[in-house]
Amino acid sequence: MSGAIRIGIIGYGNIGRAVETEVARATDMTTTGIFTRRDPSSVRTAGGSTPVYHLDDVPEYREKIDVAILCGGSATDLPEQGPRFAALFNTVDSYDTHARIPEYFEAVDGPAREAGKTAVISTGWDPGLFSLMRVLGEAVLPEGRTYTFWGPGVSQGHSDALRRVEGVADARQYTVPVEDALERVRSGEDPELSPREKHLRDCYIVPREGADLTKIERTVRTMPHYFDEYETRITFITPEEMATKHAAMPHGGFVLRSALTGDGSRHLLEFSLKLESNPFFTASVLVAYARAAWRLNREGSVGAKTVFDIAPAYLSPRMPEELRRGEL
Amino acid sequence: MSGAIRIGIIGYGNIGRAVETEVARATDMTTTGIFTRRDPSSVRTAGGSTPVYHLDDVPEYREKIDVAILCGGSATDLPEQGPRFAALFNTVDSYDTHARIPEYFEAVDGPAREAGKTAVISTGWDPGLFSLMRVLGEAVLPEGRTYTFWGPGVSQGHSDALRRVEGVADARQYTVPVEDALERVRSGEDPELSPREKHLRDCYIVPREGADLTKIERTVRTMPHYFDEYETRITFITPEEMATKHAAMPHGGFVLRSALTGDGSRHLLEFSLKLESNPFFTASVLVAYARAAWRLNREGSVGAKTVFDIAPAYLSPRMPEELRRGEL
Repeated sequence: MSGAIRIGIIGYGNIGRAVETEVARATDMTTTGIFTRRDPSSVRTAGGSTPVYHLDDVPEYREKIDVAILCGGSATDLPEQGPRFAALFNTVDSYDTHARIPEYFEAVDGPAREAGKTAVISTGWDPGLFSLMRVLGEAVLPEGRTYTFWGPGVSQGHSDALRRVEGVADARQYTVPVEDALERVRSGEDPELSPREKHLRDCYIVPREGADLTKIERTVRTMPHYFDEYETRITFITPEEMATKHAAMPHGGFVLRSALTGDGSRHLLEFSLKLESNPFFTASVLVAYARAAWRLNREGSVGAKTVFDIAPAYLSPRMPEELRRGEL
Repeated sequence: MSGAIRIGIIGYGNIGRAVETEVARATDMTTTGIFTRRDPSSVRTAGGSTPVYHLDDVPEYREKIDVAILCGGSATDLPEQGPRFAALFNTVDSYDTHARIPEYFEAVDGPAREAGKTAVISTGWDPGLFSLMRVLGEAVLPEGRTYTFWGPGVSQGHSDALRRVEGVADARQYTVPVEDALERVRSGEDPELSPREKHLRDCYIVPREGADLTKIERTVRTMPHYFDEYETRITFITPEEMATKHAAMPHGGFVLRSALTGDGSRHLLEFSLKLESNPFFTASVLVAYARAAWRLNREGSVGAKTVFDIAPAYLSPRMPEELRRGEL
């Protein structure tokens, strides 16, 4: 496609594969290549014909990529790759270690500015669209409270914690918002809610043969931080049930802003996502913000950016006139 | 307040009064004055001490107002005032004649650019936040459908239509979203829905003494465009019930985006507002966008803008670093 935004996909796990698929569906983008740490010849791509290169060869593609979408993890990949690739390309990532975002922003901002590149960090849905809703809700309704609920959806961290318990062969943990807590917020009660009052933990566990189920259950329920302070449901299932009923990666959640205006009127703003595939939705958001990164860079707006810094029009492939005509 | 953004309020009806109240609550703003077509000495302001001037004297305040919030109506006030005041001040308005927004945009854009001013048009909630959600939903989920439902809330136009019926002393019409239609959208069915399948019309009518109720009911139910194609509920009430139970101006609604990603997963994005006071919420949004208009202008970004052109950070009184630390 001539004139299309040329995308480089850095890292090829669940998110990388989903990004490849979503870029192929975008009307104004094309993928230059996928870059992986593995042997490129061993990688079967989702599209079948997307070129695969070794991560070490990325710098050679400097002139052939308009935006690099960084699809690595937040624990070890992005803290190193974010600053490094921001010096070579416009970038987008989904860095999601909330507490370290300010530090990550600074680490990426310097190299991006120096290279005249634009680096959109921490996008996806939380951080990402949910962050945008928290800021929007507070800006338009300054006197009130903001609530974020997560789920129903798979928590990778909690599933991993379950798998480390003796006697557990496999496990899946769903974080589920407590309906009663949501209703209290919606009713305008403005409750104080701790994370454990807002969420319950729904665990599906495949025990090893001969494992002591009572002991597994006790270990899980008393596990500090992860489960001990939460309402926790435990269901033992077979490997077949795990494979057939728990293979998907759904997620979602709610951001609510409940607030008063100066006349004492109460207002409720609610944003929710119900996602059948967390990686595919995240990828879809990354692709929209890649478009924004490219446009901002062409306008000379360089350095690190977050969802707070990006006007909605930059995300759409449609022209501003068309958006005004159709969507206002 | 030194360094505060100085606001001029142009027009002093429901919205103007609410804007006065919300500006007084903003930590970074102050009202220079209210401008009205009426005799200023006859106006009692919400705050009590806000100066009131005649609309003809606005030009004298050119150097004392950073942003003028235009609180007139879309039918006759704004088409004339929007372009006129955009040549004098940075402006914000809630122009809401959807079909004529492109024309209004052009009419305001020229004078604003020529004067080096920034004019944010058509903000509030629809057009405004709902428009933003429609564009955001489509940008992050390109293959799907967007639905807007309005209500439950008072429709001024339909209430006026009822009041024109012979034998009607007073009336209130609530537009109510059809719950079953909302559920069909949420279920992922992607239905085709006409406005009348999405909304029902709930009418509260105070009849004149001796009026023919059957005739009123027949006239309403067969009124072209307004009621004939809608499910319409009619309840006759007393003037006392009208005064006590129907004095408030609640409104709200829903924007939903139901869409598939490339793997066939379905995703639902839902944004809703439940507002006890339509004018107060609208005013609160206008105030946040006034902040954005001022900041954009200081950065040299002039001309007409819509919600699509404004990054969320511009709406918040908080510093970008603080937003990144707290809300990402």
